[in-house]
Amino acid sequence: MHDTAHSRLQRWEDRTELPLLAASLLFLAGYAVLVLADGTQGPWRDVGLLAVAVTWACFVLDYAVRLRLSRLRPLRFVRRHWLDTVVLVLPLLRPLRVVKVYAAVRRRHDQPRLSLHARVITYAGLSAALLGFAGALAVYQQERGAAGASIRTFGDAVWWACATLTTVGYGDVAPVTPLGRVIAAALMACGLALLGAVTGSFASWLLDVFGREGDDEAPGR
Amino acid sequence: MHDTAHSRLQRWEDRTELPLLAASLLFLAGYAVLVLADGTQGPWRDVGLLAVAVTWACFVLDYAVRLRLSRLRPLRFVRRHWLDTVVLVLPLLRPLRVVKVYAAVRRRHDQPRLSLHARVITYAGLSAALLGFAGALAVYQQERGAAGASIRTFGDAVWWACATLTTVGYGDVAPVTPLGRVIAAALMACGLALLGAVTGSFASWLLDVFGREGDDEAPGR
Amino acid sequence: MHDTAHSRLQRWEDRTELPLLAASLLFLAGYAVLVLADGTQGPWRDVGLLAVAVTWACFVLDYAVRLRLSRLRPLRFVRRHWLDTVVLVLPLLRPLRVVKVYAAVRRRHDQPRLSLHARVITYAGLSAALLGFAGALAVYQQERGAAGASIRTFGDAVWWACATLTTVGYGDVAPVTPLGRVIAAALMACGLALLGAVTGSFASWLLDVFGREGDDEAPGR
Amino acid sequence: MHDTAHSRLQRWEDRTELPLLAASLLFLAGYAVLVLADGTQGPWRDVGLLAVAVTWACFVLDYAVRLRLSRLRPLRFVRRHWLDTVVLVLPLLRPLRVVKVYAAVRRRHDQPRLSLHARVITYAGLSAALLGFAGALAVYQQERGAAGASIRTFGDAVWWACATLTTVGYGDVAPVTPLGRVIAAALMACGLALLGAVTGSFASWLLDVFGREGDDEAPGR
Repeated sequence: MHDTAHSRLQRWEDRTELPLLAASLLFLAGYAVLVLADGTQGPWRDVGLLAVAVTWACFVLDYAVRLRLSRLRPLRFVRRHWLDTVVLVLPLLRPLRVVKVYAAVRRRHDQPRLSLHARVITYAGLSAALLGFAGALAVYQQERGAAGASIRTFGDAVWWACATLTTVGYGDVAPVTPLGRVIAAALMACGLALLGAVTGSFASWLLDVFGREGDDEAPGR
Repeated sequence: MHDTAHSRLQRWEDRTELPLLAASLLFLAGYAVLVLADGTQGPWRDVGLLAVAVTWACFVLDYAVRLRLSRLRPLRFVRRHWLDTVVLVLPLLRPLRVVKVYAAVRRRHDQPRLSLHARVITYAGLSAALLGFAGALAVYQQERGAAGASIRTFGDAVWWACATLTTVGYGDVAPVTPLGRVIAAALMACGLALLGAVTGSFASWLLDVFGREGDDEAPGR
Repeated sequence: MHDTAHSRLQRWEDRTELPLLAASLLFLAGYAVLVLADGTQGPWRDVGLLAVAVTWACFVLDYAVRLRLSRLRPLRFVRRHWLDTVVLVLPLLRPLRVVKVYAAVRRRHDQPRLSLHARVITYAGLSAALLGFAGALAVYQQERGAAGASIRTFGDAVWWACATLTTVGYGDVAPVTPLGRVIAAALMACGLALLGAVTGSFASWLLDVFGREGDDEAPGR
Repeated sequence: MHDTAHSRLQRWEDRTELPLLAASLLFLAGYAVLVLADGTQGPWRDVGLLAVAVTWACFVLDYAVRLRLSRLRPLRFVRRHWLDTVVLVLPLLRPLRVVKVYAAVRRRHDQPRLSLHARVITYAGLSAALLGFAGALAVYQQERGAAGASIRTFGDAVWWACATLTTVGYGDVAPVTPLGRVIAAALMACGLALLGAVTGSFASWLLDVFGREGDDEAPGR
């Protein structure tokens, strides 16, 4: 791709990454309000709906601008930026863009404050937590009404998400609707890899600290 | 083994690997039709049966030709190519030949397009998915009729396979027949290792990306 | 921070780390007595209460002294020593300070007796065991009275903790109260990482031993 | 320890390791007969009892000889060879001595036939399988008679062991007796580490193969 195009795309991404992060958090909050306020009176549903609609519009706009700036043929752009395309259609998966967010944050203050392992643990852990929260909301929305559902309250859904992401899987609560199970399978796949990264980084961090003479980088000192 | 024999075997394998891959996908499709169309009228069962029979014949033929070309004593050949022998008897396990398929694909376009981690994630993930699908079919076939079975529909079987491969294991659905449990144990063993490879590669890929200055290889850019 | 301040803080930590370790074990024992003797007559509850109160006072005192010696503004100290702050509020999490304890122990006898992998396995395994015991106590305290609880005896709670830390998660016993589930989620997160470190270290230790010519460092020879 | 003592101990271990391996397999077989033939008429129980008694005697004898040859004070010997001491008291754990067996086998034919990863997978996998079988037997013996037990047949016990070692943990069958749960916890701990080594080695083997130009070491070729 042209160097100028690349640099302009780069500049746009640097400028928009953090606003987009804020937007996705807002999207998640709006979706939460939408789901939890469902069936209640009052303005909450409309508020949630508004937040979701506005933020989604932002995502579409950003995608369009980047498609334009990249000067690539649409299909080529979609293939190369497949992850962005997926999270454009399913904004609940935005936490998966952890690497982009990390890159954007790092560009702000070039000197990373945390050690490599701590960074991976932080970003992967946060992404997994956000994914789990989004998954709990989506599954709760599906299961709430279902007959013979074991996930009845949102608390159940969060508890289910914890047991699923850690692969403990008690099975005391589990989705029963087809769509709920599809969402659950997606959550398993994504969350598993993210939490595996957390565990693995922690393990090698511990090996590092125990191997070094001093343990000056021990967290929480 | 003779160099000429080796080279001729090599050439045969290079030429047949991708057709064999297509054949195993066809075998899986035929088996799926056979299982899912069971008990229904119409030609579907025969179609599935035909696909299974034809593809299986291809596998046997290929095995025989390679045994011939290798110029090894049969027992020696079987011992050295034990994995090929296993998947000849149980074609549902063909996804386990992921390494051979990868090698064949790579020989086509010598320049691998993806990074090492991405390649492992892709191939191991696909193999695990195919294995899970095959396992769901086989378990469904066993459990369908069983008394007190919790796996009643094919959807249940797929959901069970997801929960098993990710080692979440809710237990809301689980095989009850002896043969179903044997298949399940095999699925656990194979799928566990494959998905462990996926998770591990993802973890070290993340450590790579976070460790590097720029993250230019972030997927989906 | 000033070098002198650093050194004096260092000296204080070296002197107090092992007594603090003893104190946290005493705290755990006192808490166990408190929970298990609940509802019984006799002095046991008071003994447990006393042990908990005294040890907790020691933790607060130590924290105050270190805050003083560090010559940092309180907020800065809290941020930099966040782990210490967490375990000050929730002393049941003290096993998480495994790295500090390890450092203190190593300073005593500068020549570590065990190989790196064995050290990580030992410390991470012990921390996980202590965490599991503390978690079983806390969950048991929550669930004991609850309606429809499946964790009825302390034995059930320990069994639940084992199944949870190893991510097996049978689900035959599982917390049902909101607070019990919060504790369970915390136990999953912490224990998972610690046991992941144990498993990972064991794996690489095995790879080491099998890779080396002789296996002279095999344990238990 | 004296060099001569060391060398003589070494020679004894080299000579006895493989016979001891056979003895432990015989012990396991005898124990299986003992458990499975329980409650039946006929000589089987006595046969099993005999096998168990004889092999156990061999273990004690070997331990005594090695204690003698090592010229160490008993306590020192026990501390240094703690793993041998444990498996002397609980011969069902003998598969844990995988490293010793591996060393003995390697001394026979000094050129290892398999790659490092393949060796770790083979030995750790076999040990996990033997441990699982022993655990299934022991748990079955405990649960068989228990009230409200979900493990009723030996098949259930084996199925339970598979689901436990792979940490899937459906929970459709699970031990209910205190002793059965203690055995289960031990099985989780040991098996988890061993299978983690298998999975980890497989993952890095896959990374190796995909990283290398050719994949000539792919198994089953």
